[in-house]
Amino acid sequence: MAVALRSIARNEEGIATAVAILKQRFGTRCHTGRAVCEQHGHTTTWLPNEAPDAVVYVHSREDVQAIVEVCRVHNVPMVPFGVGTSLEGHVNAPAGGISVDFSEMAAVVRVYDEDLACTVQPGVTRKMLNETLRDRGLFFPIDPGADATLGGMTATRASGTNAVRYGTMRDNVISLEVVMADGTLIHTASRAKKSAAGYDLTRLMVGSEGTLGLITEITLKLSGIPEAMSAAVCPFPSVEAACNATILTIQSGIPVARIELMDPISIRGVNRYSKLALAEVPTLFLEFHGSEASVLEQSQMVAEIAEDLGGGPFTFSTKAEERTKLWQARHDAYWAQIALRPGCRGIATDVCVPISRLAECVAETQADIERFGLLAPIVGHVGDGNFHTAILIDNDDADERRRAQVFIERLTERAIAMEGTSTGEHGIGQGKMASLRKELGPAVDVMGAIKRALDPQNIMNPGKILA
Amino acid sequence: MAVALRSIARNEEGIATAVAILKQRFGTRCHTGRAVCEQHGHTTTWLPNEAPDAVVYVHSREDVQAIVEVCRVHNVPMVPFGVGTSLEGHVNAPAGGISVDFSEMAAVVRVYDEDLACTVQPGVTRKMLNETLRDRGLFFPIDPGADATLGGMTATRASGTNAVRYGTMRDNVISLEVVMADGTLIHTASRAKKSAAGYDLTRLMVGSEGTLGLITEITLKLSGIPEAMSAAVCPFPSVEAACNATILTIQSGIPVARIELMDPISIRGVNRYSKLALAEVPTLFLEFHGSEASVLEQSQMVAEIAEDLGGGPFTFSTKAEERTKLWQARHDAYWAQIALRPGCRGIATDVCVPISRLAECVAETQADIERFGLLAPIVGHVGDGNFHTAILIDNDDADERRRAQVFIERLTERAIAMEGTSTGEHGIGQGKMASLRKELGPAVDVMGAIKRALDPQNIMNPGKILA
Repeated sequence: MAVALRSIARNEEGIATAVAILKQRFGTRCHTGRAVCEQHGHTTTWLPNEAPDAVVYVHSREDVQAIVEVCRVHNVPMVPFGVGTSLEGHVNAPAGGISVDFSEMAAVVRVYDEDLACTVQPGVTRKMLNETLRDRGLFFPIDPGADATLGGMTATRASGTNAVRYGTMRDNVISLEVVMADGTLIHTASRAKKSAAGYDLTRLMVGSEGTLGLITEITLKLSGIPEAMSAAVCPFPSVEAACNATILTIQSGIPVARIELMDPISIRGVNRYSKLALAEVPTLFLEFHGSEASVLEQSQMVAEIAEDLGGGPFTFSTKAEERTKLWQARHDAYWAQIALRPGCRGIATDVCVPISRLAECVAETQADIERFGLLAPIVGHVGDGNFHTAILIDNDDADERRRAQVFIERLTERAIAMEGTSTGEHGIGQGKMASLRKELGPAVDVMGAIKRALDPQNIMNPGKILA
Repeated sequence: MAVALRSIARNEEGIATAVAILKQRFGTRCHTGRAVCEQHGHTTTWLPNEAPDAVVYVHSREDVQAIVEVCRVHNVPMVPFGVGTSLEGHVNAPAGGISVDFSEMAAVVRVYDEDLACTVQPGVTRKMLNETLRDRGLFFPIDPGADATLGGMTATRASGTNAVRYGTMRDNVISLEVVMADGTLIHTASRAKKSAAGYDLTRLMVGSEGTLGLITEITLKLSGIPEAMSAAVCPFPSVEAACNATILTIQSGIPVARIELMDPISIRGVNRYSKLALAEVPTLFLEFHGSEASVLEQSQMVAEIAEDLGGGPFTFSTKAEERTKLWQARHDAYWAQIALRPGCRGIATDVCVPISRLAECVAETQADIERFGLLAPIVGHVGDGNFHTAILIDNDDADERRRAQVFIERLTERAIAMEGTSTGEHGIGQGKMASLRKELGPAVDVMGAIKRALDPQNIMNPGKILA
């Protein structure tokens, strides 16, 4: 199974024809202005922007099917776009083509209260959904840093701080409606909670980054808002001690809802950006969900583990306001870090290792940050073995760029050697294609065979995941 | 995307050659005797037995690769075999070929205590694994009725009584080693708890029923043995009342570990088969996992719900021995039901619906059982909206067979109309191919395209899932 996909050279003639047809079909919803097109290319991190030739704001599955039909006939790439917060160049258009913007296709179609489920259009963001759900006593737990769209979150298999308890998008999508490359509209599964009905197309589409089809509807699993929630903050003498406390917490089976690490530089960032006054030391942020009694029991257990490892004081709060402020600061950490070095480019890394290797992996990474003279705060969804460094570089400094590159390569190789992955939640996009091959070898050829079978023209977000 | 796969007519010449080569390569581990071959065709339920031409007992991935190489060159089907407990004809060989028996490839390769994970060969059964794990304070929760192999459970996306809390095989497989149809050995994922590294090949293989590749190693998520476990039994005035109690329990977010329904006929069956003395009325069997306090809290909440719906007395037990006896009886329910009508054939149905529709679906199904004059006890993993009828028919009675067939068709259509599936956990195999098309329509063509891409010769368990 060779991995060669069709070339992604620009098809100038096809693009010109498709854009003309789409302009006629969509009128003012089809944009070709430079500013709008550039906004729809990659704008986060260091990958260069590759703008599409046109942006179409879709409102319905029929709109999406119409675009797919035009692009299929004229052999033109389509790149799905939510709010553009992906970090690995997922929304770039290396061979041009049409950016399919879902931000105006953003209805919560139906909430199935009794089934703890809902169906949404792909442009709904996680915060919009949770606004809608709040009065019903339900919530959707997956929370990447940004207020991303659920379409984008599905396509990149996103997760976030709650994943340690509630899983990732992999675990929380029940079924999908997808327009395939040949225009067929499929439903990947029924609404049943579990199923053994054939290949798991839902899971195949989750994380496929728009390369196999365009998602037009998403049915999600929801959770009941817990009776009690409490947050806790606990400083540690070292990042390693904080990791070890995390490992013990997970191994003890304590069902923490969140367990997040920030290193001293990250704390400095959020103190400045979010106006907090936390001690600038390695710190775990925790959240507990359950009954009043269970929340108390859980936090006492974690407090004991933390103290045994030299951590503390373990500060516990059930006040909703304090909790919200703390977690908003955590969600804004990426931007807070970027703000630590004005004018810098941030490069977010995303390794994830088996939790038994976490402390070792973080410690070696810290040593490497020092060795390469980089400014790279660390935050992590440590309960899952997943942590990020945000490497803050001067993009005009070739030597710094090179050092960052070597650091990232070493980090990736370290994670893979520890039986981990180069990406816990950001995805492959353009940025991690080489890592994917290092990590999974011949399995990448199997992915290539699937891609060719379902998108023989290579028009669905070409140049992502698979070269 | 047309679904036409290569014909599965017998390739007599290829089979003869392949068998001769395999006999030479595997000696006494390659069997062609009629008895052994028939044992390796379908022996449960009503589908006719279609025996393979030879059975090879494999011991290693190299053995599996050797078989794939021979079968690929000579265009001969391979059918993976664990212990033969599948219910939809998965192990039949409609075009003959080689049964690849994994029962002697049954090592627990490694337990990663700190990561709550382990790696096993496919022939390990769930009970064997739990024996190995017990002294380490860990367990593997997925428990189909039979003591199936983990290879078979992975291939059919099995679940069981614990799925309501611990999920199905979909949620508990971390990564797989697979020999693909072209002989390539792949690893579908790293050992990281979560990953966004390309297409989710793990989930694609889980539930693919041997039609995409042969699984040679499985890395599984484990759970810590809970501090406290307790079982409860609660009779109800009607199956509907029991379903409604289940629905309320799930909607209240009570993390029950098990919540199982048996109707009066099923109870009669297990009373006889497992020497119990339960009242022959609709009954819920429950299990609670957690801390001492949490287990008590959970059971009190369910007891209140049950009483409000006319159920009770709610009998609660923390004695390990009683618990084990009860759950062994539940696991033996299929055989207990078969024993209710000596000489009968049992046909297990397996619909799963959104939980809001469960009571309605069960009630209509009960009415249909009466209408068609069938003996068909009902048991169910009702917390997941999944229930089974075991239709006990005299296979020589054409009219009864026909009535059973119409009943099943109506049941399937009912479940699909209620946005459910024809199979919650048994899989498609040969028996449910028509249902799959009714349920998922054009999505089945997408499955066909994937099948053709990964197995262009159609030699991996042909004639299953996809016609």
